Amino acid sequence: MSRRAFLSHTGKIAAAYPAMLALGMLPEAPAHAFNLTGNGNGKRIVILGAGLAGLASAYELTKLGYQCTILEARTRAGGRCWSVRKGTVHQETDIPAQTAAFDEGLYFNAGPSRIPHHHQLTMHYCRELQVPIQVYNNVNEATYFYSEGKGPLSNKKIRAREIHNDLRGYTSELLAKAIDQQKVDTALTKEDTQKIVEYLRAEGGLDIDKLYKASDRRGYIEDPGAGNKPGKIADPHRLADIISSGLADPDFYNVAEYTYELQMTMFQAVGGMDNIAKAFEKKIGHIIRFGCEVTGILNQAEGVKVSYKDKKGAQELQADLCICTLPLPVLSNIENNFSSDVSRAIDYVPYMMTGKIGMQFKRRFWEEDENIYGGITHTNNELTQIFYPSYDYLSKKGILLGYYNFHEKAKNVGNLTHAQREQLALEKGSLIHPQYPKEFENSFSVSWHKTPYSMGGWAIYNGVHRQTLYKSLLQADKQVYFAGEHTTYLNAWMAGALESARRTVADIHARVTEQRITYPTATGSK
Amino acid sequence: MSRRAFLSHTGKIAAAYPAMLALGMLPEAPAHAFNLTGNGNGKRIVILGAGLAGLASAYELTKLGYQCTILEARTRAGGRCWSVRKGTVHQETDIPAQTAAFDEGLYFNAGPSRIPHHHQLTMHYCRELQVPIQVYNNVNEATYFYSEGKGPLSNKKIRAREIHNDLRGYTSELLAKAIDQQKVDTALTKEDTQKIVEYLRAEGGLDIDKLYKASDRRGYIEDPGAGNKPGKIADPHRLADIISSGLADPDFYNVAEYTYELQMTMFQAVGGMDNIAKAFEKKIGHIIRFGCEVTGILNQAEGVKVSYKDKKGAQELQADLCICTLPLPVLSNIENNFSSDVSRAIDYVPYMMTGKIGMQFKRRFWEEDENIYGGITHTNNELTQIFYPSYDYLSKKGILLGYYNFHEKAKNVGNLTHAQREQLALEKGSLIHPQYPKEFENSFSVSWHKTPYSMGGWAIYNGVHRQTLYKSLLQADKQVYFAGEHTTYLNAWMAGALESARRTVADIHARVTEQRITYPTATGSK
Repeated sequence: MSRRAFLSHTGKIAAAYPAMLALGMLPEAPAHAFNLTGNGNGKRIVILGAGLAGLASAYELTKLGYQCTILEARTRAGGRCWSVRKGTVHQETDIPAQTAAFDEGLYFNAGPSRIPHHHQLTMHYCRELQVPIQVYNNVNEATYFYSEGKGPLSNKKIRAREIHNDLRGYTSELLAKAIDQQKVDTALTKEDTQKIVEYLRAEGGLDIDKLYKASDRRGYIEDPGAGNKPGKIADPHRLADIISSGLADPDFYNVAEYTYELQMTMFQAVGGMDNIAKAFEKKIGHIIRFGCEVTGILNQAEGVKVSYKDKKGAQELQADLCICTLPLPVLSNIENNFSSDVSRAIDYVPYMMTGKIGMQFKRRFWEEDENIYGGITHTNNELTQIFYPSYDYLSKKGILLGYYNFHEKAKNVGNLTHAQREQLALEKGSLIHPQYPKEFENSFSVSWHKTPYSMGGWAIYNGVHRQTLYKSLLQADKQVYFAGEHTTYLNAWMAGALESARRTVADIHARVTEQRITYPTATGSK
Repeated sequence: MSRRAFLSHTGKIAAAYPAMLALGMLPEAPAHAFNLTGNGNGKRIVILGAGLAGLASAYELTKLGYQCTILEARTRAGGRCWSVRKGTVHQETDIPAQTAAFDEGLYFNAGPSRIPHHHQLTMHYCRELQVPIQVYNNVNEATYFYSEGKGPLSNKKIRAREIHNDLRGYTSELLAKAIDQQKVDTALTKEDTQKIVEYLRAEGGLDIDKLYKASDRRGYIEDPGAGNKPGKIADPHRLADIISSGLADPDFYNVAEYTYELQMTMFQAVGGMDNIAKAFEKKIGHIIRFGCEVTGILNQAEGVKVSYKDKKGAQELQADLCICTLPLPVLSNIENNFSSDVSRAIDYVPYMMTGKIGMQFKRRFWEEDENIYGGITHTNNELTQIFYPSYDYLSKKGILLGYYNFHEKAKNVGNLTHAQREQLALEKGSLIHPQYPKEFENSFSVSWHKTPYSMGGWAIYNGVHRQTLYKSLLQADKQVYFAGEHTTYLNAWMAGALESARRTVADIHARVTEQRITYPTATGSK
């Protein structure tokens, strides 16, 4: 085919584009655009909280001609979207303040640290605000499972790949055998059934006799190399040992990055997740009043009155409408005249207790000694997880998350002093990485449920809550709208804050401009 | 616990470090150090080929006091470790040359593009030579399976996550049911058997009745969002449809990044994989003679004589020893006086036919329209795979690999002109991404088996070859040593080139210094 013929051919495909679009052969326009029409004409909106929900609301409302003011109790924006760096100060409710002693350039994300690739709004704002992102290496088969317990595989570190592949190997073998012996009705033709057996052989890494003897997927005890080195594979663990050691327990398989949200592919903002908050701040930072702790939110006959205190004393602010993004445990201590339904929601939606500790080490021993580049080690003890950093690979020093725990574990650890938390992280962490004590330099810990102006990790709803408490927060209480991850099905995620902001902006804009605006349904991941 | 008590406690752990080491509780020293003793005292080594094997050999030998010269036929170093950028020129054996018209800053890796995290030598040299690396996003459940064929799921793109989770769901359901009905003997206690069923429920995403109805892991048709948007999950595909559409065939499951080498976590050099070659070149570039095509390798009574031609004409070079890293199909056309065993290996080891095409698009539609950030789409047609770039996410333009194919498919495509290859990639690619024709700008294609001085992708050995042909290449043929990925069990990998270099350097150094040196066994991934 000549170049000319080829070009003409390509031209034909291009010409067919509109037709393909009409036939539904092309994807629809990206769901990220938020192009509302009409103008807010300077309506005054007071926004409580400069977390991502507040920032995004202000950003979009300002574009639409509203006059926004954000009241923020802290001296920084971002809320839970917060990266800890050298000099960061943190004060919890009942223990002395700490100051981060990390080296320049090192950080950890105390709040959200991962962006699922399908969280379109988070990706959208990174694109629009030009926040560079990099892969958050969430899945790494080289990390460990460490089960404290009594079984033969307990109290030692086992590579995740060994457990994953042994479990898949044994279960594939069981099913392949049962199908071969016609003990299982696949409801498929004989030929298709045979294809399932072949699939199981691949999925489980079975041998030619469909037995699981260990495949190279579980790793080598001697790697393949040059010359006379074909590599040596260890025997698989016994299935009974895996089970009795607790390694088939939900502590491991339920948290092992195999969900829709916790999977590959994930991202983080380069240099710290709070660069997303800072990018918003760059756009609308001038409307944020820092150091303003809200004390009252009162609907008036018209408009809303917000009381707050700053370093000069008690203050008041009048606005036409209010967007309240404060976490519910914070809101529950603020004077208000909300409806009884809203008040009940504020008081009864439970929040996650959760905490993290960032630990600086003078050598990246997890990379140098153990070939672990990012990813997460899982335990069933108070640490729950150890996260290896997904930035500055191969460099000298690094900060790893010494624990990231929840619920009861987080409650217990939250009751310790910083020094005690550090000691716990060192002691339990040393069971997995004996290099800890030699290489450790300093740490910084955060318990979110003991952190003023947050008082929890994120809202937790069960099915009943969704039908009752949750629904009360979705409508404006007179002039007050509620936004934040707690008004979404994306709890704990930055995307929740951002989606809630857009939903609220759409509601407000519909009211002010008297348009019918339906907040668009998020595009499915299909 | 007081700060002092805590510090004393930590001190105790540190003091225990040597004891822990002795007890085998600490990992051994990293396997990467290559600390040979003794000096080469200026022995002359001629190295044929400035690919990674030749570069690493020269780098290590120079450190040891040898006098090395590298002869390289091309005008650049790196061999198959080659990144294509604006202005790159490529000439294959029987079609006109092409010049890359990519925008500044965009590139694709025509050769190796992925570093498994457990390839310790590759990581080691990136660390030692300070080559920055970033995650190569090899696994992305958002990419597509596209099966050309006759089944109901053929000829359309299906997200990988749908097929993966449906197959795991259905097979988990089958096994859970069989176990419940006591049709399968797990050889476990009743209690442990119940734990396996619970594991299957998690692994397969089964419902409370242990039926597979679709889990959110397979993705949403309407994502969860703010307010009244819990998200909507589609029904799973029918198992019979998946099979009859070819989506359970080896075309998909055998290549879907679920091996020891092709998995998470993988890396690439920032800015192009050839930055690894360039980093070596920075150290020992002055000893490379470019544009020197080797024509003869003749062992002498003492030493070795290498004939070559450069732009001035025929040349000769004498050395004490020679390291020949030339790919075997290239070597087979060079005059030599090797043993008959070596000659047989040179002539009969088959090499992979393989090719890639890099396609520049003016918009990253795979990210903007389809939420695909890196990863690989799989097909059963000539394209085999489409790779999405793992760098510059969220930016404007991008280069994706329009195909990466092997064997017969690569042979057929290799016989086309560049324009025809581009047309094929556009036509088949448009079936998956109808945005192709509208957004396409230019392309650059490489068929390795038609590329002079390479003449193939990599050596392919079966079990019989390993016992015969392969073994002949592992010993020096008098004064000539063989190195390169074809002298390893790490075929196609940069780690193969690097491991072979070290093995050869160890062999030469043992001979010259009359020491016994055993090239160290690669540390296992345990």
